[in-house]
Amino acid sequence: MVLVNGSPTESIRVFDRGLTYGDGVFRTLPVRAGRPLCWQLHYDKLGADCAALGIESPPEQCLTEEVGRVIEASPDCVLKIIVTRGEGVRGYAVSPGAEPTRILTTGPLPQHPASWFDDGIKMHLCSTRLAIQPRLAGIKHLNRLENVLARREWTDPAIAEGLLLDMDGNVIEGTMSNLLILQGTTLLTPDLGRCGVAGVQRARIMALAGELGLTAKVENLSLAELHEADEVVLCNSVIGAWQVRELAGKMWRSGSLATRLRKLLDDRTH
Amino acid sequence: MVLVNGSPTESIRVFDRGLTYGDGVFRTLPVRAGRPLCWQLHYDKLGADCAALGIESPPEQCLTEEVGRVIEASPDCVLKIIVTRGEGVRGYAVSPGAEPTRILTTGPLPQHPASWFDDGIKMHLCSTRLAIQPRLAGIKHLNRLENVLARREWTDPAIAEGLLLDMDGNVIEGTMSNLLILQGTTLLTPDLGRCGVAGVQRARIMALAGELGLTAKVENLSLAELHEADEVVLCNSVIGAWQVRELAGKMWRSGSLATRLRKLLDDRTH
Repeated sequence: MVLVNGSPTESIRVFDRGLTYGDGVFRTLPVRAGRPLCWQLHYDKLGADCAALGIESPPEQCLTEEVGRVIEASPDCVLKIIVTRGEGVRGYAVSPGAEPTRILTTGPLPQHPASWFDDGIKMHLCSTRLAIQPRLAGIKHLNRLENVLARREWTDPAIAEGLLLDMDGNVIEGTMSNLLILQGTTLLTPDLGRCGVAGVQRARIMALAGELGLTAKVENLSLAELHEADEVVLCNSVIGAWQVRELAGKMWRSGSLATRLRKLLDDRTH
Repeated sequence: MVLVNGSPTESIRVFDRGLTYGDGVFRTLPVRAGRPLCWQLHYDKLGADCAALGIESPPEQCLTEEVGRVIEASPDCVLKIIVTRGEGVRGYAVSPGAEPTRILTTGPLPQHPASWFDDGIKMHLCSTRLAIQPRLAGIKHLNRLENVLARREWTDPAIAEGLLLDMDGNVIEGTMSNLLILQGTTLLTPDLGRCGVAGVQRARIMALAGELGLTAKVENLSLAELHEADEVVLCNSVIGAWQVRELAGKMWRSGSLATRLRKLLDDRTH
């Protein structure tokens, strides 16, 4: 089922600025047994991302009611919520009175190989670099051509994800995940103040690091530092956490961080 | 009238990657007396932009036929053509067999004040900077949040356009136009190899510069050099050319370049 502004339809108007300019934001989150996981964090992030673009965020009651309707027939699914600035006439200026568009869709939970969770994954080093744009950094907006180009760099189904560096060569994230490294007892994730998407799962992990006896740290990360890491982990709301075992010829030994993080994240899911 | 893949409808599917990722390109061109102006150049640019993103461009015969249908009821209009990569399932990877989506819309020709053509325009200096992304530079793609943010910086209707610099402070373009400056007998336009949209009208002007006794030059341009220019001109396919008379306190004397360019562009329109 798809809902657009509360109505069951799979269509939006061609004048919607989500299409014409990518003028909107989105959320992707798992639903299990009819419950959208970590809903409050996702709703808050949706609101923050809307605010960063000057889009009015849907009221929570309206959105939760629509989420309830859309997941009714699929209690275990991936829920996607798109909010755009709404319709516009031609031109970048925002039309007065434009009403944001809410688009809710569901899809099946992905079926990744069990080994990606148990043994870790192989990662491609993307040649596509992320542009530096502090005005859009951190926001999960609809301008995702860099991710599309990066994802087109490999077709080997044994490669689970691609690593994105920024224009200056800093390690930033995966095409669909955030990245963390373990250095001794420090859990470090790249600073996303200049590019990248600051995901909800990354924020949860950094907040929970202390419970694993780790010190959370956010700073710039070079490829050389990544290579020296004890463990490298990817996270997002749908996969939880995966260990990176191989990246462009570099191999890491099997570690326990991804498993410990998944358990912690699952235990604290609300 | 709106045509989507040849069918009269004002809707596209919510799964279209044009919406979900801004995964597509577009063209905006004037139609006069039932004739889309400089059609061949626009079609070629559409094809080049599609190719740069790995999207199959619509065959020319198919597109000209649809253009003919969509402008039948509006022989004088602005025609917009969007081509997206088509539908996808969730995730950045391109679904095998995805067919590009063609969206053709028409709108009224804009009614700008005559003084903007006769006397020139006032320009805002945007604080939003263009990110440096050579992989997307020059392409008129659907990831236009930078333009949206820049256009939100002013509401004064007396300001016709906003000037965009890149992250390094180079002068690049307007939010909806390309920029050229006259320095003696040199017509210079910023290099767009790292960001910006390389418009059809800019290419035409550079190709025709010799006929005005001017030497065309493409290179980096600083704000200081812009201030020293004899004349500053904006161009796009809909407006033709406007002189910039005022930018953030800096004033230019009335010049003749914009008028000469408009005449030349009109004379050579095909």
